[in-house]
Amino acid sequence: VNTPFCRRLGLAHPVVQAPMAGVAGGALAAAVSAAGGLGMLGVRGSEGTTWLREQAELAAAGGPFGVGLQLWKLASSEGLLEEVLDTGPALVSLSFGDPAPYAAIVRDRAVVLASQVQSVEAARQALAAGVDVLVAQGTEAGGHTGSVATLPLLQEVLPLGEEAGVSVLAAGGIGSGRGVAGVLAMGAEAAWVGTRFAATQEATGTAGAKARIVDAASTDTVLTHVFDLVQEADWPDRFPGRALRNELTDRWHGREDELAARLTEVQRRFRDALDRDDRDVAHVYAGQASGLVQGVPAAAEVLRELVDVARDRLRAVGELTR
Amino acid sequence: VNTPFCRRLGLAHPVVQAPMAGVAGGALAAAVSAAGGLGMLGVRGSEGTTWLREQAELAAAGGPFGVGLQLWKLASSEGLLEEVLDTGPALVSLSFGDPAPYAAIVRDRAVVLASQVQSVEAARQALAAGVDVLVAQGTEAGGHTGSVATLPLLQEVLPLGEEAGVSVLAAGGIGSGRGVAGVLAMGAEAAWVGTRFAATQEATGTAGAKARIVDAASTDTVLTHVFDLVQEADWPDRFPGRALRNELTDRWHGREDELAARLTEVQRRFRDALDRDDRDVAHVYAGQASGLVQGVPAAAEVLRELVDVARDRLRAVGELTR
Repeated sequence: VNTPFCRRLGLAHPVVQAPMAGVAGGALAAAVSAAGGLGMLGVRGSEGTTWLREQAELAAAGGPFGVGLQLWKLASSEGLLEEVLDTGPALVSLSFGDPAPYAAIVRDRAVVLASQVQSVEAARQALAAGVDVLVAQGTEAGGHTGSVATLPLLQEVLPLGEEAGVSVLAAGGIGSGRGVAGVLAMGAEAAWVGTRFAATQEATGTAGAKARIVDAASTDTVLTHVFDLVQEADWPDRFPGRALRNELTDRWHGREDELAARLTEVQRRFRDALDRDDRDVAHVYAGQASGLVQGVPAAAEVLRELVDVARDRLRAVGELTR
Repeated sequence: VNTPFCRRLGLAHPVVQAPMAGVAGGALAAAVSAAGGLGMLGVRGSEGTTWLREQAELAAAGGPFGVGLQLWKLASSEGLLEEVLDTGPALVSLSFGDPAPYAAIVRDRAVVLASQVQSVEAARQALAAGVDVLVAQGTEAGGHTGSVATLPLLQEVLPLGEEAGVSVLAAGGIGSGRGVAGVLAMGAEAAWVGTRFAATQEATGTAGAKARIVDAASTDTVLTHVFDLVQEADWPDRFPGRALRNELTDRWHGREDELAARLTEVQRRFRDALDRDDRDVAHVYAGQASGLVQGVPAAAEVLRELVDVARDRLRAVGELTR
C-alpha cells in the first residue's frame, strides 16, 4: 500500500509511530523505521542536548525518522527546534498551537513539516502557516488531544488538505489493521499510531505502564487535566490528556479546584508512586485503542500485523465495488 | 457496493438511516428506503398506536423499513414491541439495555434483530441474546450514546461479529461518503447515519433545529444529562445524550445537582422555548458529524452523495493495493 506521503518520505508502509514523549525514544523509532514505517522521537524539551543526540543517532540507524515537539513549549525553549533540526530528521511535527512562527525554520532545512490538528479551525491555522502534512488527531487518542473523534474530524480535514495539496494523516484510535484500512479508504495517506506502539518491547514506558495498557478496555480511559495539575505542566486548557483511569483520576477528575488546594500532598503521593511504578496513582497516557492491545511484542511485529491486515481489507473492499 | 447485510435486507446501498426519535418518521424512512437505503422509524413508545400505524404505512410506501426502540423503556411499555412488529418492519433495533428478554419475540416473526452497542461488553451481551446485527455506536453519535469513539469501538466489535457470524454496522460520526467508505473498508456491512438525515426536508425536526445543525461545527456538541433531567426522561446514567451546546447546557452541564434543585423553573423556560422553537434553550440532539452538514436537502440527495463518494473512494483505494 503506497501513498504520496510514503513516496515523499521513502516509506514502504503508510504507518507513522506517534512521537509519544517519555515513551518514544530512539530504539522504538529505529525499530519502526527499519520495518518500513516512520519512527518518531517524542521530545518534551527538558531532556537535554545529549539525550536528544543519542536518541536521534539510535533512530537514524533504522532509517528516516521524525521528531514531535509541542508548540506551546517552543517559545520558552530557546534553540530547541534548531537542535532538533541538527539531528537530521526527515519530518518534524509541531503540534498544540500555531506553527506559523516556526514553519520557515523547518522548511528552510528541507524537512517535511507536519502538525497535529484537533479541529477544522486548527487545520486552517496550520495550512495558513504552510505545513506539508496535516495530522487529524481525534479525541480517542492517548495523551493530549481535543474533543472531536477521529472519524468526523478526518472527514472534515481531508477536503481541506486536498484543496491545499497537502497530505492528511489520521491519528487517534487506530490500533489494528482494520483501522489502518479504514482511514486509508477515507483518503488519509498514513495512519499515525500511538498506543499500540507504547505497548512494545522497544518503547521506553515502564513495565507497569505497558501492563496497564494491555489490561485496559477501551472504556477505561479518561480525558483529564489531573496529571498536568499534579505535574505542574503548563498545557493549554483546551488540550486535556487522555490517560487510563486509576485511583488518582477517580479521586480528583472533576474536583480540580480541591486538588489545587491540596497539591503538595498529592504530588508527594504521585512522585512516590512514580518511583515504585505504581500505576494506581501514577499516569499512563493511552488512547481508546488500548482495548485492541493484547501484549507487548516487538514493534516490527505490530507494524507487520497492521500492514498485512490493512492490505487484506483493502483488497477485499476493492472487490465490493465490482 | 453490496454487502451481506444489503442482500439480506434487499438494499441497493449499504446505508441505514438512524431511527431518531422525534425526527425520523414515515416520510424520512420512505424517502431513504425508496432511494435504496434502509429507512427507519424512531419510536419512543409514547406516540400512540395511531401515530405508529400511520408512520409505518408511510414508511412502507418506500420499501422495506426498520424501527428503533429503547430497551430500558420496553419493560414499561406493555405490548409496544408486538404493535411495532404488527406494522411489518424488515428490521427492529433494540438498543440501550439487554435485548435478551425480547429477542425471541422479534425472531419468531422472522424480523431481523439489530442492537446498537457502545462497548465490547454490550456487544457480547447482544450476541448472547442472539441478535442478527451489531451496530457499533461511537460516542460522536448524536443523541444517547456511550464513551468510546466509533473508530476504536468498530475495530473491537468487528472481530466479535465475524466470529459469531453476525453483521456489524457502524454508527456515529459518519456524515460523508468518505466516512461510509472508511467503515466499509474496516469491514462494516453498512453505515448507520443520523445527523446528516436529521437535516433533510423529510425529517420531522423543527426548522430551528435543522438550522442549528447546519450552523454547528464538530466542536459544538456536548455529551450531557441536562436535557434528560429537564424532560424527566429516565435514561440510564451510562447513556448521556449528545446535543448541540446552547445556553441551557452552558449554564447547567456539570451543575446537575443545582439544576435538580431548580427544576420547575428551568422546565418552565424549556417548555416555553420548545413552543417558540428557540434552540438557544431547547435541545437539538446531533452528533459531531454536524460539521459536515451544509444544508437541508431531500434525503434522497444525501443518500446519493454518500453512496457515490463512497464508491469512488473504495475504487481509488483498491488501486492503492495493486
